[in-house]
Amino acid sequence: MLTISAKEMKDVLYELFKKYEFTESKANLLAEVFTQNTLYGVNSHGINRVPYFIETVKKGIVKVNEEAKKIEAFGNIERWDGNQGPGIINAVTCTNRAIALAKKDGMGLVALRNTNHWMRGGYYGWQAAKENCIAILFTNTQPNMPAWGGKESRIGNNPFVVSIPRKEGHIVLDMALSQFSFGKINNYKLKGEQLPYHGGWDEDHKLSKNPENILKTEQGLPIGYWKGSAFSIVLDMLATLLSAGNSTYKIGLKEHETAISQVYLCIYPEIFHDQDLQHTLINEIINYTHDVTPSEKGERTYYPGERAANAEKHNSKNGMKVNKEIWQKVLSLL
Amino acid sequence: MLTISAKEMKDVLYELFKKYEFTESKANLLAEVFTQNTLYGVNSHGINRVPYFIETVKKGIVKVNEEAKKIEAFGNIERWDGNQGPGIINAVTCTNRAIALAKKDGMGLVALRNTNHWMRGGYYGWQAAKENCIAILFTNTQPNMPAWGGKESRIGNNPFVVSIPRKEGHIVLDMALSQFSFGKINNYKLKGEQLPYHGGWDEDHKLSKNPENILKTEQGLPIGYWKGSAFSIVLDMLATLLSAGNSTYKIGLKEHETAISQVYLCIYPEIFHDQDLQHTLINEIINYTHDVTPSEKGERTYYPGERAANAEKHNSKNGMKVNKEIWQKVLSLL
Repeated sequence: MLTISAKEMKDVLYELFKKYEFTESKANLLAEVFTQNTLYGVNSHGINRVPYFIETVKKGIVKVNEEAKKIEAFGNIERWDGNQGPGIINAVTCTNRAIALAKKDGMGLVALRNTNHWMRGGYYGWQAAKENCIAILFTNTQPNMPAWGGKESRIGNNPFVVSIPRKEGHIVLDMALSQFSFGKINNYKLKGEQLPYHGGWDEDHKLSKNPENILKTEQGLPIGYWKGSAFSIVLDMLATLLSAGNSTYKIGLKEHETAISQVYLCIYPEIFHDQDLQHTLINEIINYTHDVTPSEKGERTYYPGERAANAEKHNSKNGMKVNKEIWQKVLSLL
Repeated sequence: MLTISAKEMKDVLYELFKKYEFTESKANLLAEVFTQNTLYGVNSHGINRVPYFIETVKKGIVKVNEEAKKIEAFGNIERWDGNQGPGIINAVTCTNRAIALAKKDGMGLVALRNTNHWMRGGYYGWQAAKENCIAILFTNTQPNMPAWGGKESRIGNNPFVVSIPRKEGHIVLDMALSQFSFGKINNYKLKGEQLPYHGGWDEDHKLSKNPENILKTEQGLPIGYWKGSAFSIVLDMLATLLSAGNSTYKIGLKEHETAISQVYLCIYPEIFHDQDLQHTLINEIINYTHDVTPSEKGERTYYPGERAANAEKHNSKNGMKVNKEIWQKVLSLL
């Protein structure tokens, strides 16, 4: 592993995105988000994804010069079309728009169609929280899990984000609806370990903790078995019908995952003019959750986003650990 | 088991609630909701809960003559106080209010504090869907599950509802965030069976499939282990801060579960004037989800709410199966 500073990574990525003909401001934003994602400890949707992102740019799956545009509006609900532009930039745009609507009307919703992978959804949760907004954000994906009761993959792991602003550290839940990502399952495989809990289906359609067997089928398991399966279906329906965009079904008909659908809902809690009370209530919940006997020695409870914020602090000070081959691959693209 | 028709049950319950001094219209609504919940196959939050509901009325936990009142409003976001009135009536009121706001502005949110148990959250999902609205509804509860990493119960199973209108049958996800309810765990105990998956913690704080051991600790397991734990925390935070009401922490300080906090968010998708397209998109998702090889012989996939709707059809035609002792208990209260 190499140790890279945020400044070094951002400078390299800025040059890289400029080379692929993004404007200066877009290259800067992309470099910022990929670097932040790595700073927050999510290398899988930070630096590790850069080579694949460049590939999708080269193939024209991500359209360098396209941007999200408003298509329709009714009050504080809007439909936008991402025009297959870069998912990160479209997501930042639509989060900003939902924040602006929320600050004006208390609440705003942007439904976005035809966008690309937003990488780490948590980024946009933090983006809204930094603007003192609550956010509920979700995206559909290609089919990568069977719906409960069937064998073939029919539902997406549909990442889901909820964020709540708080001055000592924002609360940000950022979870895919699969119990384990394929990236995490692969890490267990590389370490020669079994998963601690069921993580997907094997070739005999049995629930499995064996990473190799799950990676053969590429069939993940939804959180909560039948419950996460149903939750995934409704998130896909909401994103699809509110944006009039592609469902997981339609995305699955494409060669690559693209032209996906997302929802950005923001609420501005300061409309109630009792921020001190709200702050007390949230801190009471956090203190109550923290005040426990550890389940095992060395364990503790965290509020959502707490570990990511700790990683950001640590990595800002000490640099980010980056896989050497991935960094060399990124440099070779320059 | 007895077989009771919807008419018979509703008539009996109407008389019962009148006896406990509910007004005619409130007695009628309570009787309707408890009966509908049973018709939809959810006896645990229908007829089976009536004796406990009457107990809470007798103890003054549910205040017969109190109603939910609007406290504050900003645009299409409102805060209401349930004044510890009956949870069912408060929930119907706040769902109607969120529907009205959504039909006017596209989207409406009602945060309700100091209410009581809403029984079956799905009822209000169907209520919104029958008015052609999308609904996202949730409630906090008393602490009944440990947060991931700790031993003591700190989070609620916080039922969460998402509904989407559809003319051939509404889509309604109605799930608690526990993998199994204590009622279901008790059913396994009565049958002398183990749970098929982890359902909670035993006295040594080990994950368990043994219903008896879980019922000893009354510590349920969140769906998706650490993921549902985090989801429960953010739902509690949202309900608490938007309503300025009690959190799971505060509810846990009370002798009984009461004065809880809830959120009612409705969206009116007809603002986009493309109901035919929306209908096609939703049906494509349903058809795709249905079109699978069964995971096991006799299995199939369902869209959320499909089984409940089937139960409603079956029970409307054939009558509802009701536990004899529970029915006699209800009659004895008359």
